[in-house]
Amino acid sequence: MDIYQYLDQQRQRVDRYLEQSLPDSLRDPEKLYESMRYSLLGGGKRVRPILTIAAAQALGYDHDAMLPFAASLEFVHTYSLVHDDLPAMDDDDYRRGRLTNHKVFGDGMAILAGDALLTMAFELCSQDESRSGLTASQQLQIVRELAYGSGHQGMVGGQVMDIQAENQEVELAHLQKIHSHKTGQLIRAAVRIGGIIGGASSAQMESLTGYAEDIGLAFQIADDVLNMVGTREELGKDAGTDEKRGKKTYPSFFGIDGARQLGDDCVERAVKRLESFDHQADPLRQMAAYIMSRRN
Amino acid sequence: MDIYQYLDQQRQRVDRYLEQSLPDSLRDPEKLYESMRYSLLGGGKRVRPILTIAAAQALGYDHDAMLPFAASLEFVHTYSLVHDDLPAMDDDDYRRGRLTNHKVFGDGMAILAGDALLTMAFELCSQDESRSGLTASQQLQIVRELAYGSGHQGMVGGQVMDIQAENQEVELAHLQKIHSHKTGQLIRAAVRIGGIIGGASSAQMESLTGYAEDIGLAFQIADDVLNMVGTREELGKDAGTDEKRGKKTYPSFFGIDGARQLGDDCVERAVKRLESFDHQADPLRQMAAYIMSRRN
Repeated sequence: MDIYQYLDQQRQRVDRYLEQSLPDSLRDPEKLYESMRYSLLGGGKRVRPILTIAAAQALGYDHDAMLPFAASLEFVHTYSLVHDDLPAMDDDDYRRGRLTNHKVFGDGMAILAGDALLTMAFELCSQDESRSGLTASQQLQIVRELAYGSGHQGMVGGQVMDIQAENQEVELAHLQKIHSHKTGQLIRAAVRIGGIIGGASSAQMESLTGYAEDIGLAFQIADDVLNMVGTREELGKDAGTDEKRGKKTYPSFFGIDGARQLGDDCVERAVKRLESFDHQADPLRQMAAYIMSRRN
Repeated sequence: MDIYQYLDQQRQRVDRYLEQSLPDSLRDPEKLYESMRYSLLGGGKRVRPILTIAAAQALGYDHDAMLPFAASLEFVHTYSLVHDDLPAMDDDDYRRGRLTNHKVFGDGMAILAGDALLTMAFELCSQDESRSGLTASQQLQIVRELAYGSGHQGMVGGQVMDIQAENQEVELAHLQKIHSHKTGQLIRAAVRIGGIIGGASSAQMESLTGYAEDIGLAFQIADDVLNMVGTREELGKDAGTDEKRGKKTYPSFFGIDGARQLGDDCVERAVKRLESFDHQADPLRQMAAYIMSRRN
């Protein structure tokens, strides 16, 4: 299989669903929907939804009925970017090569659009079970995974740890903890939600969870490396921002090459976790490698 | 029955659950939990959770198993206050007689604490169904009500409309629309969630929904009147802030007495909706009157 072709196809599939979930006909209040659409539909690799899809596919499930659940991860991811970019947080002007949400719509609207995107993620996951093709119990599990991965014990907790660590001396163990929360927990939720959709056994869920934790770490290492060596064009935002902020990163502990090696080890471990899966898990396997190789 | 005694008892019941849901032992990251607790446990009448409880009781259900669902409404309400108070929105320094969250913890932490409270509301609603005493299908309905009432078509949508209406000439119909979204939808969700918990028939759910819409309007009218005539002590924040901001309110259309009359009419209509319910709906009936008579 060609992973780039696969990613492209699945990204288009996710994008179609995202566009349809916030159609132009939704327009009252107009500014809110403009702001939500600006960030949700403003490009992005859709890595998290595709992880959900690939995990479900690894278990032989590939119906479009899973798209609302896969999309919910992009809603949560997008809201987190909108809020993180605010002046009160990272104060970033650019994201994915465009002005950040608050730069276009103002801080108040960016806060509200983020709130609405987060809430809508749960709306997508809680549609009537007669339409989802899943059982209510599966959907409830999905809501639980999403809430856990994105909340105080997951992504938001990690974001707080990250802010508090700026300009502090941070040990490697603490850096890992920050990342496993800030980035790792939502990736873990993405993969596990795919597992729930595909009806994973508990052994399969354990393998998927291990896979997700390994690629979550690889993902962050790749981000850190990219922030250091990427060009403004590749990143769609300024490079070297971590260093400027005095943020500890994997390269600051291990150097660029050491960090890359660490990331490659994670990828290898992740692939190994999927030993008991057949060829249907190939997209998942290749996504692990893709995550370390990506250039933006 | 004595409504004040009832409200006091149920408030204590809700408060006990809220405290237990964010115990002092939850402390990593410490500042996040401090900030969440500061606003969630900082007093408040707990009207929305009590509406959920009273609606379930009207249907003969009164187990503590409903407390996570009732509490989820207070989590959502609290997050909305924390975000609304931010400088980028209403820029309020005081709330419930204390400094607002961002005044104590900073804007960034207030945004994140709000995000975490909102997300945790969905965590509370999606706990394993074996522990809730409800079916997964009921819980999924609850998640759906909560997401709908608090999101783009509900509370957040109303907040955007409200901000955009400041210093604009607003017609009465538009004012009602703003309020039915900003305040009304979450109150509607509170009552309907009680209905789901109590196993309401569709006719009963229709009555409860009508009741909720009527008291939602009464609630907003009472708020407007209070904002105009209340003292700083009663309100726990500055009075007359709506007028200062050039905000249209019910008293600005009907005068204080006219607005009060309108509110009383809503209460009467709300009580009438409950005709087919027996004495178990008395708390719900009396809460309608309480809402118009409250002084803070």
